[in-house]
Amino acid sequence: MSLINETHDINLTSWVSCANDASTDFPIQNLPFAVFRRKDSNEEFRGGVAIGSQVLDLNVVANANIFTGLAQEAVVAANAAALNEFMGMGIEYWSALRLALSKALRAGSEHQATLETSLVSQADIEFSMPCHIGDYTDFYTSIYHATAVGSLFRPDNPLLPNYKWVPIGYHGRASSIDVSGQEFHRPKGQTKAPDAEVPSFGPAKRIDYELEMGIYLGKGNELGDAISIKNAEDHVFGFCVFNDWSARDLQAWEYQPLGPFLAKNFASTVSPWIVTTEALAPYRTAWTRDENDPQPLEYLDSEENRKQGSFDVTMDVQIETAKMRKEGVEASKVSQSSFKHSYWTVAQMVTHHTVNGCNFIPGDMLGSGTQSGPEHIEAGSMLELSRGGKEAITLNNGEQRKFLEDGDKVIMRGWCEKSGFARIGFGSVEGTLLPAK
Amino acid sequence: MSLINETHDINLTSWVSCANDASTDFPIQNLPFAVFRRKDSNEEFRGGVAIGSQVLDLNVVANANIFTGLAQEAVVAANAAALNEFMGMGIEYWSALRLALSKALRAGSEHQATLETSLVSQADIEFSMPCHIGDYTDFYTSIYHATAVGSLFRPDNPLLPNYKWVPIGYHGRASSIDVSGQEFHRPKGQTKAPDAEVPSFGPAKRIDYELEMGIYLGKGNELGDAISIKNAEDHVFGFCVFNDWSARDLQAWEYQPLGPFLAKNFASTVSPWIVTTEALAPYRTAWTRDENDPQPLEYLDSEENRKQGSFDVTMDVQIETAKMRKEGVEASKVSQSSFKHSYWTVAQMVTHHTVNGCNFIPGDMLGSGTQSGPEHIEAGSMLELSRGGKEAITLNNGEQRKFLEDGDKVIMRGWCEKSGFARIGFGSVEGTLLPAK
Repeated sequence: MSLINETHDINLTSWVSCANDASTDFPIQNLPFAVFRRKDSNEEFRGGVAIGSQVLDLNVVANANIFTGLAQEAVVAANAAALNEFMGMGIEYWSALRLALSKALRAGSEHQATLETSLVSQADIEFSMPCHIGDYTDFYTSIYHATAVGSLFRPDNPLLPNYKWVPIGYHGRASSIDVSGQEFHRPKGQTKAPDAEVPSFGPAKRIDYELEMGIYLGKGNELGDAISIKNAEDHVFGFCVFNDWSARDLQAWEYQPLGPFLAKNFASTVSPWIVTTEALAPYRTAWTRDENDPQPLEYLDSEENRKQGSFDVTMDVQIETAKMRKEGVEASKVSQSSFKHSYWTVAQMVTHHTVNGCNFIPGDMLGSGTQSGPEHIEAGSMLELSRGGKEAITLNNGEQRKFLEDGDKVIMRGWCEKSGFARIGFGSVEGTLLPAK
Repeated sequence: MSLINETHDINLTSWVSCANDASTDFPIQNLPFAVFRRKDSNEEFRGGVAIGSQVLDLNVVANANIFTGLAQEAVVAANAAALNEFMGMGIEYWSALRLALSKALRAGSEHQATLETSLVSQADIEFSMPCHIGDYTDFYTSIYHATAVGSLFRPDNPLLPNYKWVPIGYHGRASSIDVSGQEFHRPKGQTKAPDAEVPSFGPAKRIDYELEMGIYLGKGNELGDAISIKNAEDHVFGFCVFNDWSARDLQAWEYQPLGPFLAKNFASTVSPWIVTTEALAPYRTAWTRDENDPQPLEYLDSEENRKQGSFDVTMDVQIETAKMRKEGVEASKVSQSSFKHSYWTVAQMVTHHTVNGCNFIPGDMLGSGTQSGPEHIEAGSMLELSRGGKEAITLNNGEQRKFLEDGDKVIMRGWCEKSGFARIGFGSVEGTLLPAK
């Protein structure tokens, strides 16, 4: 488990002066990774690290050969069009590179002159997926979301008896996950209105977002070998903000008995930066359950997990409609929640997923499931905000929404803030719903 | 859609004389692809084509440069440790290579002398996965299986209202799919007996197999572009026999509301050879539904699909226990079914999967779902054969089974036979259950 160390010191400053602004998502204490190239160029995509409004080009860093040992090996691996190899190296390598980058970017670093030439403005870059996602699994870790959605789909039976025992998850589609900026057409499919005799085919009417934390696996495990809860987090490279777009009317008709399928796999969008588990060390919180709830089975329990198993990452959602863009109105914030509300911890997700011997490959992704909080305004989907499409929400320019309309852009952000520590931001994930083809 | 052509002619014979035996799975009319190397060697894995008891080494064929045009391009791509690039080239390339291979292997071929040196006995090789599977989706296309299993999990509501309208499918785990010969430890996990107050953790007790057809996608589609039913099969490279191992007690406790997860993702096993869609052209059959059943929605319907949308592939299951191996007793056949019983066709699966814009990548796999037939002896799982674990089945050496026991090897085979055409075999997929770790 990553502990607080010198890289988290709030007093560190960088020779990249924009990184010293208290409001930046990317101070020297963050150092998240992405894969990028200059916009509209034919450059190779390669790894980069955010610092203030800039990105440190890891191609330049790797070739400058200024690091040594594990850190140099790691930066060479991260100088690639996908970070899988670097992610698969393991926590010692990630940590060594973080420390080396922290030192090299600090005010007064001997490497300033070398690295100044490697900075590119984030305004001038485009991203690709940070890694190849082999398999993607979506969990269902917000009990508030599970209860709210359960009460819409199964009014008599909202929270199923297994929920408080099993970190419920299901396999999702990896091929349709793309990076922030994704645009997709309103999906078509089968739906059946409650009063209809037979289903019909056409564009889905109830397109929704889901506010999730994306969790990237680093070092994998061999098929047949479970990952113990005690070292589960050592397999977690980092986190992003994740929008798991959903078509609620397709979902309602198709999901029994084997789960959501076409309601989910038309598109999913990740934020470009992977914030490392180590960067989040100051933002760990105790994992708590209602005192009347059952205790976790032994394989899902550890003292460390109880003490600081959760992460307090604030996340919000904004909707920017076509009308807002036309009129120059700012996007309208519709909800805000935190990953700390998760009923299951990341370590529990990892351990549960592998307890039967299932194997992770570096770069695999877990979704946390929609991170709704206890209050209605903390709902992580429009399905919940609109109470199943019954009550429209009003945006800040007066427009109303029950579900998304063509042209709507959804913007999700994530950040951590706490007295005594630097702000750690995730940046944003944006995606736009286009009309059906 | 692949049609019958000169490569299917029953009168063709090969200079590889063992391929002319009427009982071989691999006559010159078949020509399935795998990835192999010599057993216990450090050779590179590369593509191969089965011919009788031999495999034609595509590394030798590619370098011999005896083909031209699309066929030569195709064989160069198939000379690789994974067939994805070849599979992604499309039906013209697959068909050109099939014709070139058919001609080169025919009795009297001018290439006999060149190719004789490229033959390796199948007894002397080992396989790897034939391609990298990016995403794997499991369908549920046997209405007999869906009804039988439904009646065990939901006695009051066995076949859900969507079944006859929606080709039900769900995402599976790609990382834990391996090739025939896979051995795996009995998975552990949470189960809850119906009369238990709380769940418990331990080795699963109800380990089962599922007899499926595996379907490999060839040419993919761009995210956002649906594949029409009219050309859906042009995206299907070929087929294998597929064992989708299942832990029924884990499944019963975890599967609501998001579907099976740890009950399935500990292991799945494919037969090594991919029998191409074109090789199966003589074994197409009409797709029929009960006359009282609803007709498919327009996007899932075409005249071609109705006329010859199904494939009559016979599949059987044998169990070989540890005791049988010790006593030298042959494996015991426990059921036999056919892919022709599928309620949905391959074209319908492909079209449905992409109708919302979901994208396929070359090498993606679809499982047909357990291919149970209408009779009890055609059940494709032990769950069905043992009527939910209530009635043991008796093996040919007198041993009894409700579910699999440690040391049991499951062997599944597939083949097509029909008067006027050569037998097209799939070979077998074998896998062994080891004790829990």
